[in-house]
Amino acid sequence: MNPKTLDKLIGAFMMLPGVGAKTAQRYAYSILNSSDHEVNNLSKALLDAKHSIKFCSICGNFTEEDTCDLCKTRPHTQICVVKEPKDVVALEKVKGLKCVYHVLHGVINPLEGITPNDIRIKELLSRVAKEGVSEVIVATNPDVEGEATALYIAKILKPLGIKVTRLAQGISIGSDLEYADEVTLTRAIESRREI
Amino acid sequence: MNPKTLDKLIGAFMMLPGVGAKTAQRYAYSILNSSDHEVNNLSKALLDAKHSIKFCSICGNFTEEDTCDLCKTRPHTQICVVKEPKDVVALEKVKGLKCVYHVLHGVINPLEGITPNDIRIKELLSRVAKEGVSEVIVATNPDVEGEATALYIAKILKPLGIKVTRLAQGISIGSDLEYADEVTLTRAIESRREI
Repeated sequence: MNPKTLDKLIGAFMMLPGVGAKTAQRYAYSILNSSDHEVNNLSKALLDAKHSIKFCSICGNFTEEDTCDLCKTRPHTQICVVKEPKDVVALEKVKGLKCVYHVLHGVINPLEGITPNDIRIKELLSRVAKEGVSEVIVATNPDVEGEATALYIAKILKPLGIKVTRLAQGISIGSDLEYADEVTLTRAIESRREI
Repeated sequence: MNPKTLDKLIGAFMMLPGVGAKTAQRYAYSILNSSDHEVNNLSKALLDAKHSIKFCSICGNFTEEDTCDLCKTRPHTQICVVKEPKDVVALEKVKGLKCVYHVLHGVINPLEGITPNDIRIKELLSRVAKEGVSEVIVATNPDVEGEATALYIAKILKPLGIKVTRLAQGISIGSDLEYADEVTLTRAIESRREI
């Protein structure tokens, strides 16, 4: 009984994570009540972001160019390994951390069939070989898969004489980096330990 | 440190109701992980809905044409008065209710300076005068503003010989007496009916 274009918009909003029929309807109605300018803006921002953002050829984080700003401007002596680009956003809130990142785009998860070959571990190895890295900070989530990935990385990097550290367990077990507060993250960076 | 287009997308998502920085970021990242087709689809649905949907010239509900499907196909003897278009969606789930609607686009709220002239009450009066209406069901929310609006509508329609009814108020089906508030219980006791 809704106009077809409204139903289509509600359906389209349901592609967003955690958005069900009720929330999608709420969003759609708010779109109809918004100014043309705002709606055009959102519509354009979607296309712009989708079409212009790719992965940095070095660290795998989001960028609009071939190499991201962090990889371009920071020394590559310290590499912080994370699961996803959003973890970079979280870690960048830590004051005094001036490392480059390495986004794995996943963690080792045998139950889901994700092996070390499925995530960007080969790329990490070739960076370590090339870039004169002195320390690799493994900042995967403190859950089973994150721990397993950290141990795997430590196992293959230690023989190369690289210091491999892990975020201290100040971050609570089973939580998600994205939602950690800055103080907890700072503490975790300060007391990172060698594995 | 996010690419600019990503930050713009996050900012644009924050126009949606109840969406703060974290949720907007989550949505934006999910967009980057979605297929081109899905993103184009959402982008287009936004523009299509915004540009093709207007208000029905009779009832004020959303439609793509001059008159909505309900106003075109149903008899205009029973008019159900609601605050917003989304209330029409809720009421349409009621089986056996085959009325047309009248969307007020607001309720009387003196504290926020919303008077009867600011909502579509004049339009309701002219419909009642023209369309041979036998009953007006006032289905505004059971809060102070909704009640005030219902009373106002009853006051101006009753002298015209129109039957004005209001949705029954009481305990909701499947709820627990223990948790019902006093006002609801009082109303339920007052309008108790013989079985």
